[in-house]
Amino acid sequence: MTLNVGVIGVGMIGQDHVRRLTRVLSGSQVVAVTDVDLDRAKGVADHLPDATAHASGQQLIDDPAVDAVVVTSWGPTHEEYVLGCIAAGKPVFCEKPLATTQEACERIIDAEVAAGRRLVQVGFMRRYDPQYRAVKAALTGGEIGSPLLMHAAHRNPSVPPHFTSDMIVNDAVVHDIDVARWMFDDEVVGVTVFTPRVSGKAAAGFHDPLLVLLEMSGGVLVDVEASVNAGYGYDIRGEVVGEDGTAELSESAGAVVKRAGTHAGRVPADWRERFARAFDAEFQEWIDAVRVGGSTGPSSWDGYAAAVTCDAGLAALATPGRRAAVVLRDRPDLYRPDADGGG
Amino acid sequence: MTLNVGVIGVGMIGQDHVRRLTRVLSGSQVVAVTDVDLDRAKGVADHLPDATAHASGQQLIDDPAVDAVVVTSWGPTHEEYVLGCIAAGKPVFCEKPLATTQEACERIIDAEVAAGRRLVQVGFMRRYDPQYRAVKAALTGGEIGSPLLMHAAHRNPSVPPHFTSDMIVNDAVVHDIDVARWMFDDEVVGVTVFTPRVSGKAAAGFHDPLLVLLEMSGGVLVDVEASVNAGYGYDIRGEVVGEDGTAELSESAGAVVKRAGTHAGRVPADWRERFARAFDAEFQEWIDAVRVGGSTGPSSWDGYAAAVTCDAGLAALATPGRRAAVVLRDRPDLYRPDADGGG
Amino acid sequence: MTLNVGVIGVGMIGQDHVRRLTRVLSGSQVVAVTDVDLDRAKGVADHLPDATAHASGQQLIDDPAVDAVVVTSWGPTHEEYVLGCIAAGKPVFCEKPLATTQEACERIIDAEVAAGRRLVQVGFMRRYDPQYRAVKAALTGGEIGSPLLMHAAHRNPSVPPHFTSDMIVNDAVVHDIDVARWMFDDEVVGVTVFTPRVSGKAAAGFHDPLLVLLEMSGGVLVDVEASVNAGYGYDIRGEVVGEDGTAELSESAGAVVKRAGTHAGRVPADWRERFARAFDAEFQEWIDAVRVGGSTGPSSWDGYAAAVTCDAGLAALATPGRRAAVVLRDRPDLYRPDADGGG
Amino acid sequence: MTLNVGVIGVGMIGQDHVRRLTRVLSGSQVVAVTDVDLDRAKGVADHLPDATAHASGQQLIDDPAVDAVVVTSWGPTHEEYVLGCIAAGKPVFCEKPLATTQEACERIIDAEVAAGRRLVQVGFMRRYDPQYRAVKAALTGGEIGSPLLMHAAHRNPSVPPHFTSDMIVNDAVVHDIDVARWMFDDEVVGVTVFTPRVSGKAAAGFHDPLLVLLEMSGGVLVDVEASVNAGYGYDIRGEVVGEDGTAELSESAGAVVKRAGTHAGRVPADWRERFARAFDAEFQEWIDAVRVGGSTGPSSWDGYAAAVTCDAGLAALATPGRRAAVVLRDRPDLYRPDADGGG
Repeated sequence: MTLNVGVIGVGMIGQDHVRRLTRVLSGSQVVAVTDVDLDRAKGVADHLPDATAHASGQQLIDDPAVDAVVVTSWGPTHEEYVLGCIAAGKPVFCEKPLATTQEACERIIDAEVAAGRRLVQVGFMRRYDPQYRAVKAALTGGEIGSPLLMHAAHRNPSVPPHFTSDMIVNDAVVHDIDVARWMFDDEVVGVTVFTPRVSGKAAAGFHDPLLVLLEMSGGVLVDVEASVNAGYGYDIRGEVVGEDGTAELSESAGAVVKRAGTHAGRVPADWRERFARAFDAEFQEWIDAVRVGGSTGPSSWDGYAAAVTCDAGLAALATPGRRAAVVLRDRPDLYRPDADGGG
Repeated sequence: MTLNVGVIGVGMIGQDHVRRLTRVLSGSQVVAVTDVDLDRAKGVADHLPDATAHASGQQLIDDPAVDAVVVTSWGPTHEEYVLGCIAAGKPVFCEKPLATTQEACERIIDAEVAAGRRLVQVGFMRRYDPQYRAVKAALTGGEIGSPLLMHAAHRNPSVPPHFTSDMIVNDAVVHDIDVARWMFDDEVVGVTVFTPRVSGKAAAGFHDPLLVLLEMSGGVLVDVEASVNAGYGYDIRGEVVGEDGTAELSESAGAVVKRAGTHAGRVPADWRERFARAFDAEFQEWIDAVRVGGSTGPSSWDGYAAAVTCDAGLAALATPGRRAAVVLRDRPDLYRPDADGGG
Repeated sequence: MTLNVGVIGVGMIGQDHVRRLTRVLSGSQVVAVTDVDLDRAKGVADHLPDATAHASGQQLIDDPAVDAVVVTSWGPTHEEYVLGCIAAGKPVFCEKPLATTQEACERIIDAEVAAGRRLVQVGFMRRYDPQYRAVKAALTGGEIGSPLLMHAAHRNPSVPPHFTSDMIVNDAVVHDIDVARWMFDDEVVGVTVFTPRVSGKAAAGFHDPLLVLLEMSGGVLVDVEASVNAGYGYDIRGEVVGEDGTAELSESAGAVVKRAGTHAGRVPADWRERFARAFDAEFQEWIDAVRVGGSTGPSSWDGYAAAVTCDAGLAALATPGRRAAVVLRDRPDLYRPDADGGG
Repeated sequence: MTLNVGVIGVGMIGQDHVRRLTRVLSGSQVVAVTDVDLDRAKGVADHLPDATAHASGQQLIDDPAVDAVVVTSWGPTHEEYVLGCIAAGKPVFCEKPLATTQEACERIIDAEVAAGRRLVQVGFMRRYDPQYRAVKAALTGGEIGSPLLMHAAHRNPSVPPHFTSDMIVNDAVVHDIDVARWMFDDEVVGVTVFTPRVSGKAAAGFHDPLLVLLEMSGGVLVDVEASVNAGYGYDIRGEVVGEDGTAELSESAGAVVKRAGTHAGRVPADWRERFARAFDAEFQEWIDAVRVGGSTGPSSWDGYAAAVTCDAGLAALATPGRRAAVVLRDRPDLYRPDADGGG
């Protein structure tokens, strides 16, 4: 009954998922790992009972002991491993991005459609966050009427030196793109980027923060502030404005401390703290679905649509204030909305 | 010592200011009123001790018993009365708009500059709101670093049938324009308007809500959601994003009531409830300044800059997604920033 | 029409009330002052137009220019001045305490009853605080059902060296006693005091904080934490628990600032900041009522009941954990509840 | 490596724990169940892979397939099963109460001490709640200074008809007793109960709400409002007051919804919703500890101390306003504070 998982890529995020699969969640164990750094893979395997360190991702996929695969390697390698899993008929959880080009995403879609069933889940974990789910529940429950706007902010306390403006779109805003698509069951049709005064904390040549405007097919507008040098914490905000009211992510809870003239709550330090429960729920639902032969959650289509929208975002970033259109291929039946699971 | 005030225009707002000047604030009384509806003026005068109902605004201005004038008549009449006050050398508090065209605002500026001293205050009351002042204090106190962005929302529960999309700009967003100018001690140089899906509550042909993007000379971007059919209450939001943190208007206080599955606070019902204290502070500071021969608060220049920016906003509204530039004449020395009072 | 006020006692609080009566509120001016320190009185008078500095409180009361009197002198002198005002038929606003003994309060009641009309208002300003009023409105509006309990906290950041445990009861808890009586339209019938571990900030021999339990005639229990070395700010809390829900004072509003890992609001620094609006409303309502020959607000009866309850509180403080009964004389018709105004 | 758990008592709570052990948490499976209603036990076993339904608790304990036992049967049976587990040398997680009399608790302590190692964990789940942990972290981290007071409220929306006032103490306040002991690393030495006006929702003869005052050995006072007909939701409040500040459980998060004149957050509907994460963390930490042969969390001593304190609470409830002393036996070394785990 236990799902035997192989993990491709055991860097920081991969190791955190190994911990989750072996020590937090129910119904899974990790039986195989691999990494571009084989020593690291061996080190991880050594701390697991009965896990094999494979020399390559393909070997891991081919390992008959492996029921399902988690891909957390470097982005450019995702396409190969996801296609390998589809070819092997094994369910695969792929951290975002699904692939680094639209074309690669399309190849995955084509392969999965040819396989005739959903095998791929993409790691858009916000759909599993209790707060986002509560906001969506307020919307779909009719509490605030039909949606008109969404205001969002995505603030990282800081980023490493190699971070670029493009990565704000691909690594940060990509989550807001997925949230918008999921929240409104709709696609983005246009992206505009505005560049306010650059933060003194940003590296030279870096546009930070950005104000990104997403236009949904149904007319809802989503404005996203993306800041990656916010300094004070990891702060994710979102408010959906409907015809009758609004629904908003609450501030993070915990203790309210009164001291030295203020009453204060904590802002999460990083994404691990903010989304720990979302990651747990995301993987548990994936395990539960895969164990019964099903599928769930963000699909290859979601990965593809995010990739196309991010590409438009990059084009928009290159011409601030100019709208870039988002054009998607037809959605295969395999990914029709009522086939979506996972929130 | 008491300031004898004449009030031109005693409709709903004018009567509220009469109440404020006679029964709430210190140091003023109302000695003269007038209105396009003379019977209404007489009715108001009858409830005041020793107040005269004049047949015209000019008569009221000329009345030697009148030390200072409040103009709350219909917008298109503002220019005439403000110019009349300047000609008479009497301080005048003019509800926004200062005048309904840029040219009229410029004539007022020219007249005031020629008079050699500030006589005009414009009714941008948000500068006197304790919450806005607390946000500005956090900014100017260095708590959040240099400003980068501001997010704002201006939500009216509903509007009368004659309300138009243009009025969203001229009557609602005009306050956000003034807030932005005041908050950042800077001018707006560009306006873009985006039109999301129209609310089902909006009248036919009406763009509501709007998303308005203000670009400040220094690079700060301000996004303003303006909704005039928000339904649930009168909700004014604002968050300034700086390099080190953010400062935000808090939700309105009062009682927190727990019942029936929720813990809830009240959203103000209308602008009177939301800004009662701001109106009181605005007029008290005006009275105090005028009694000692000084001047304070939003100036003719502020009224002019708001008018020019609103005109750009209307142009932008006519071409959604296209930026309209804001070009101001040179600022006369009379209105140099360090001569500004009132917040 | 202007109310000509004489102020007895122009120390810190008295001067603040002079400011309020002359520069903040409508319809009053200060025409006479006196103080135990005559030079101080003269100094205050010099800064007022046409105000006389009297050598004694009785002289001030007798001054025919004085329409009404504010008593903010040292507590032990209150009885004499209030009785003087009653004898002179002049309305008097007396800061708490009404008098320093039950017997003195009773003499005031007897004199006022003999005079046949209410002339005395006692300075229990919380009844005029917007938040307390919102809580009471939720209660009387039926939103939370019939009351069962109230939880309160009264925290001062610090106190001067001469402060004693008795003063926690007489100067701090007295306000909570009045709030309880007003909130529930009921009398306190028993007081118990508990003494937790003493704060390291308290002076030697000082019981601080205290936990005070008030038992209302109708069975509602009110627990009051009274701390006078709370350090972090001036924090007044209150939650009424009803059969269907609760209503609570909200945290003070203003700006919410996010920085350095927290989102934080301000705790007021002192009672001036916390209750500025309450003091303004209290005096404006008093002025308005007195100008039309009426009366309003907390009465001599309220001052008397608070005094008797505080005496029970002192007895209870002397025997921690032991209930002290509160026994009031019969309430004269002059003070029957439906004759109460002002909150 | 998987911990094979047997569950004694599979009513509502027991079934929820079975779900948790089999479908939520990592490292455990349920291999045996029993219940006073054997058919119910069989029904539960039928939905589990390879689980046996035993005819008695003792049979289950004796089952060699069972590594560890969860006791969620009727309170009066706890002693027998816990003693059985100790005799068998098997770790046991016992839902509160540890046993229904002090004497029974002492027999368990004696047996465990004789066994020479901790085998028993008692189900005080609040120690695992993220909010309580954040409050304790603020306290132990020195943010608010040394503790002086704690204010708490325990509000159930409603209770079944058979519920009695005694059960308010034994089933509700028992959690606040454990929180106080854990928060302050201290024992309760006195309990006083006050009975406010009875809620109209309470059954005849029922004292509800109660105000319970706990006196800690170190002088900290804890006041607990316990209401079991609160109606509006399941609301658990707690604020620790220290010499420098306070730390408080925040209101539950999720979505903030603005509609119809309010901005509102959700109050949990019941203890399952409020403490879901605490239950998960509690069991996961127990599983993790037991798998490596260790022990953690609330001990038999904690169960005993809670029982003695509850007995004092019942005595206090019988004589409202009278303090009942709490006298504990000496604490065996096995339960010395630095041997405590689990928060």
